[in-house]
Amino acid sequence: MFDSFEVKSKITGTYSVNFISDLKSQLNQVIDNGEVIFVIDENLISLFRDDFDEIIQTQRFVLITSEEKSKTIDYAQEIIRKLISLNVRKNDILIAVGGGITQDIVAFISSILYRGVEWIFFPTTLLAQCDSCIGSKSSINFDQFKNLIGTFNPPKHIFIYNEFLATLTESEIRSGIGEMLHYFFTDGIRLAQEISDQYDELLSNRSKLPYFISNSLKIKKRIIEIDEFDTSIRHIFNYGHTFGHAIEAITNYRIPHGQAISIGMDLANFISMEKGILSIHDFELMHKILVKNIPSFIFCTDNIENYCAALSRDKKNKGNKLGSILSKGPGKIEKIFIDIDQNLKNTILNYSKQYLTANN
Amino acid sequence: MFDSFEVKSKITGTYSVNFISDLKSQLNQVIDNGEVIFVIDENLISLFRDDFDEIIQTQRFVLITSEEKSKTIDYAQEIIRKLISLNVRKNDILIAVGGGITQDIVAFISSILYRGVEWIFFPTTLLAQCDSCIGSKSSINFDQFKNLIGTFNPPKHIFIYNEFLATLTESEIRSGIGEMLHYFFTDGIRLAQEISDQYDELLSNRSKLPYFISNSLKIKKRIIEIDEFDTSIRHIFNYGHTFGHAIEAITNYRIPHGQAISIGMDLANFISMEKGILSIHDFELMHKILVKNIPSFIFCTDNIENYCAALSRDKKNKGNKLGSILSKGPGKIEKIFIDIDQNLKNTILNYSKQYLTANN
Repeated sequence: MFDSFEVKSKITGTYSVNFISDLKSQLNQVIDNGEVIFVIDENLISLFRDDFDEIIQTQRFVLITSEEKSKTIDYAQEIIRKLISLNVRKNDILIAVGGGITQDIVAFISSILYRGVEWIFFPTTLLAQCDSCIGSKSSINFDQFKNLIGTFNPPKHIFIYNEFLATLTESEIRSGIGEMLHYFFTDGIRLAQEISDQYDELLSNRSKLPYFISNSLKIKKRIIEIDEFDTSIRHIFNYGHTFGHAIEAITNYRIPHGQAISIGMDLANFISMEKGILSIHDFELMHKILVKNIPSFIFCTDNIENYCAALSRDKKNKGNKLGSILSKGPGKIEKIFIDIDQNLKNTILNYSKQYLTANN
Repeated sequence: MFDSFEVKSKITGTYSVNFISDLKSQLNQVIDNGEVIFVIDENLISLFRDDFDEIIQTQRFVLITSEEKSKTIDYAQEIIRKLISLNVRKNDILIAVGGGITQDIVAFISSILYRGVEWIFFPTTLLAQCDSCIGSKSSINFDQFKNLIGTFNPPKHIFIYNEFLATLTESEIRSGIGEMLHYFFTDGIRLAQEISDQYDELLSNRSKLPYFISNSLKIKKRIIEIDEFDTSIRHIFNYGHTFGHAIEAITNYRIPHGQAISIGMDLANFISMEKGILSIHDFELMHKILVKNIPSFIFCTDNIENYCAALSRDKKNKGNKLGSILSKGPGKIEKIFIDIDQNLKNTILNYSKQYLTANN
């Protein structure tokens, strides 16, 4: 097992990340330690019924439907209503068991119920384990606006259990690998190369993932401890994301998040190369790694206008300037404001012609 | 004018309280200082039309209906929708102009919109000026549960303008005086005696209120700077409130808040005397002050069961024990857990027979 570590927070002091090997005993320890109510992704109940035995007996749990359309204030209100029916009190601790959507809803509720109740998180997807479980953010959609609402509110403890990963689809693993690659590339080339070398094996043998999860979290930890509220240096983690979010938007979220940001990183690197700040050698080095995780997708005259319109709606823009996180090489990330103009469109179309395919 | 002062906050560092004499120039200064959107109690627009001239011209404002039934998550969502239609951005500052309900809604929205936007507050009621404007709390009702939802989120600046008070009803002034008396009694007898001596004059001549407002806020400031999140010493400010809230609940909020807590303080004092921790002299001293602010209300066999049921639902209870804030004399406040039993009911009925009247 990997070492536990602590993350410093301006909000809560510190919170802990723990790699665990026995889910049932950890859950029961949580139950024994105080007044708790579990909020569990409904898909997990049948998969881990034996581990959840004691929780089901206490009846202090709420099931959650973990779809993107659950990430609304209205759905959070439904869950609050269920918590009230379980007689939730200010001193109760909410225990979230699920992926990023479960996390978002529980973290948000825990921010506003009784002006704040504590919460603990058992992340169950690779994306949640390698990324979102630390960093304090909760995100709730509002009407057509993704993640417009939210709070900063880290859990008190995070428990990472490897066996959850065995239940995930290959697509979910690819998505998590994309997110980890983005952390690794902000740090250097070594870990990105390692995960690339084991790429095919990791899709089926998930026991090697915790090594990468631990490293991904530790890279994130260093930055969020300095800039928890995402006002300065944490912006480097938008690497691949600004360009990736707009791909997700125009494809109606058909492409899994971590794969969209794999294209986003490759495109950011291409733009960096065009701007003369990234060498061809470094672009190709990173492209060889990223391409394994890039799905079937192209930019073309049919979608380039929509794509640039989506980029122009990014909330971190200044006027018509896109706040782009570009790369000067592995481990060398820089924020540069660029115009969303015909020149950018041409660059993106050129990138697509040379490096993307509709039949990947 | 009274001196401005700063309040320390664990959330935002510090925030300022400023007594202003020229509303229009202060509003225009706020407009000139950056991207702002005003959220204004709709009742104020016609009363202060000239002062709001520039705001109306910029069209960057939302009107709010300040009724208790507006304090819901759904109404907050309506206001967010209006802010989006004004193209609200993360760097915009929300400027709340209104009483406690406007404050609650704007503070709550500012906690969750884009994971937090700044806000500034122009409190317009006596209750908001003398009490709620500092202390960081926002409170939102949920279904039948009052203030179940909320956050800690102080404004960046508070501007207190005396002329707003001229528009208030006598009932609103009485309510504010009740709230101030509660701060004054946690501090000693002097300020409570002073406000009592000027009671009748203050109802019509509001120009003398800022002196008491300033003192009320400074007493509150000392405690909230130590216990912003209301986990220990700030509990003394529940003095009169636990007993008062239950009166509000059983009278369907017919009795204004500050008057209900005036009864609440008098009752808490009576219970303290019964328990032998408060002298008859001190009880009578405070009763003479409080009685001026106590409205027509009695406890009787018709409402005592409902009243104790409301007490038993107080969220700060421990089991069947009521966390009561009792008094050992002016400036000597203590938290004591008491049973909600027949003995308490008898004490309350005795208090009512001796000190309350249905025709006050």
